[in-house]
Order: sequence, then structure tokens, then C-alpha cells
Amino acid sequence: MYIPPHFAETDPSEIAGLIEACPLASLVVQTAEGLVANHLPLLPEGDGRMIGHVARANRLHELVTDGTEVLLIFRGQDGYVSPDWYPSKAETHKAVPTWNYQVVHVAGRIRWDDSDKFKRRAVGLLTRKMEGPAGWKMADAPRDFMDGMLAAIVGFEVAVDRVLAKTKLSQNRADADFAAVRDRFEGQGRHDLSARMARMPRGAEK
Amino acid sequence: MYIPPHFAETDPSEIAGLIEACPLASLVVQTAEGLVANHLPLLPEGDGRMIGHVARANRLHELVTDGTEVLLIFRGQDGYVSPDWYPSKAETHKAVPTWNYQVVHVAGRIRWDDSDKFKRRAVGLLTRKMEGPAGWKMADAPRDFMDGMLAAIVGFEVAVDRVLAKTKLSQNRADADFAAVRDRFEGQGRHDLSARMARMPRGAEK
Repeated sequence: MYIPPHFAETDPSEIAGLIEACPLASLVVQTAEGLVANHLPLLPEGDGRMIGHVARANRLHELVTDGTEVLLIFRGQDGYVSPDWYPSKAETHKAVPTWNYQVVHVAGRIRWDDSDKFKRRAVGLLTRKMEGPAGWKMADAPRDFMDGMLAAIVGFEVAVDRVLAKTKLSQNRADADFAAVRDRFEGQGRHDLSARMARMPRGAEK
Repeated sequence: MYIPPHFAETDPSEIAGLIEACPLASLVVQTAEGLVANHLPLLPEGDGRMIGHVARANRLHELVTDGTEVLLIFRGQDGYVSPDWYPSKAETHKAVPTWNYQVVHVAGRIRWDDSDKFKRRAVGLLTRKMEGPAGWKMADAPRDFMDGMLAAIVGFEVAVDRVLAKTKLSQNRADADFAAVRDRFEGQGRHDLSARMARMPRGAEK
């Protein structure tokens, strides 16, 4: 991914926060049948591992062998930025369109795990995160039913090798331009984008 | 991508509509340096081509030669679905979590084009779509400035070989469950998801 220095995201809490807020990753891998992508919730576990599962009917676990490099893409909200939004544009007219977004790329090696123990951990991790303490849990379902559902998935983990992240939210613009973009996104209902911009330390004007 | 028959999206207008609504594609390609993804607005032009551009400073146009297969991923809003949302769950407790989303995968071969003519067409196509007739256009900027900006990008097109699309929006659930999921997304402010569900023909109960 092309990352100009002013858009490099190096804050570990911001990177973890984006993965936490947008867990449905695009898992991409080169296979004998070409590039294949699937969209799966992936959660971090422990140090440097991401955990997920696929449907057993998904041939991915047959096509892709243990140790293969996969790319996980976690992406937040995005939005087009018009040059007309910048107050500075009216003075110089030196502005072009751009697109704002935040993204985290995680590259690592996949390992499948079809054991009941691993799969219960994977599903438990996901449901605890998404449901909270008072929500649905596996034990709410009849045991036979849950056993059947777990038999219908295959678990996996990705051992993380590299993390690349980009925050492209007009932080290279002057304060007035930055604020105008934030307000436009807010007006469009792109609250995730505007809220993130509101939390950003404003860098020096570039 | 794994697509059970009931989640296969085959409606050309729905596929075109998702690309139109979510033009910031994840462009993924296998390179000598591993899997590389960049996030770029891509627009359809004519029959079976997608048009875009990268910053010249993005090494992608050096790493990836003409004719290489690339994957474009266009994805809409997504959301976790709790089993507790289904009215039917209270009767049988036979339900598990899932995730709803819509995605279009476009596979094709990339061709770079660094000509001024092509790049003006690429940027013109993008600005006309995003700005509408009354908005910003290239001619609003000083000629020297715009020449410099165009010199700082490299254009490309992707000749489309295959399109795969998946609409996973609880259409395999009974009417009452489907309606409950739609209402929950609406309540969460996931209006794109709930609006799409509201427009869907309800399939037979599965």
C-alpha cells in the first residue's frame, strides 16, 4: 500500500481501535485458482494472532494450505472530498478531489484448526465481543444444535507478520480546510469519519 | 468467495448499484513483494472496463506489469446479527450469530496508461460522477497547477474478466426474522443496510 509519510498510521491504539470497530476483514489470498477474497470477522487473540472461522462448505480451507500468506484488510468508513469544500480553495483554486479513509492491512500466515476446542474458543471470542456479558452465548442453544453448527465450520488463526496502516483524513490540510471536511462528513451522516477527525491531533500545516 | 446459492447476487442493476454507491475499491494484486492492496476509486466505463489512477509515487505501477490479474473489491455497509434479534429464536433457540454485508468482486487484467489524454478522461469521469454538473471541474484550477497534478498520477484500466457478487442480508430467514434484523440495523443507524433490505424481494422461507 502506498503511504505518504503524513498519512502513515503508527499509533498502536488507533490501529487496534480500527480492527475492533470494523472486525469484518477482507481475507485475500493467492490460490491455484487466482486471487480469492472472503469477508470474515477476525479478532485479535493474545500476542500477534488473529482468530476466525469459515463455513466448512467454503473451499478456502482446502485451497489454502497451512503456512500460506494471507492479507487481512480492515477498513472503516470512507468519503469523497470535493475541492469546493476547502475555504482555501476560493483563494487559490489550487485543489483537487481526494478520498478519505482509514485502513489496516495485516499480513500473516494462516493455520487451520478443525478441533472442537479451537472452534468453541473462536466462536466464544466473537460472541463475547459482539454480545457483551448479557447477550447471546453458545449455551443458549440446544447442545445437539450447537454441536452441528460447530461441525459445519472450520477454524483458523493468522500469525501476524506485518501490520501496515493508513489514516487519510485531510490531516495534511490547513486547520480551516480540515474543519470544513470534518463538518461536511458530519452533515452527510458519516459520523465515524467525522468523529475520528474530531479526535485527531491536528498536525502542522503542510 | 464462498457464495451459498441463496446469497448469490445475480441482478446486474444491483451489482452496478453497489459499485456506484461504494466506488472506493480495494485493488489487490499478487506481486514479487507479496500481496499488495490499495484503496482507489474505480468507475466503470463502456463495456467491461473499470478506470482509475494512482499517485505516481505509488510503486504499484512499477511492480505490476500490464496484463497482470487484479482483484477489485467493492463493499457496502456491514453489520453483526445477534441470534437474540430473531423472533423465532425465542421458540426454538436454534440460531447462531452471523454477519450481513454486500460485496462485489471484479477480477480483470490491469493496463497502465500515462498519457495526458487518458488521465484527463479518468479524472473527468470521477469528478463528473462525484460532483454532478454544478460542482468542481478540472477547468476550475489554474492550468499549470492542473498539469502538475496530472503529471503526478498514472492512469489505468482494468479489463473485466469475471464478476462475483454476494448479498448476505438475512434473506434466508423467515419474514419476521428478516424484518427484525432490518429494524435493528435501522435503529443502529446502518441506513444503507436497512434501506437495501427494505428494497429486497422477500424470498421463500428457508
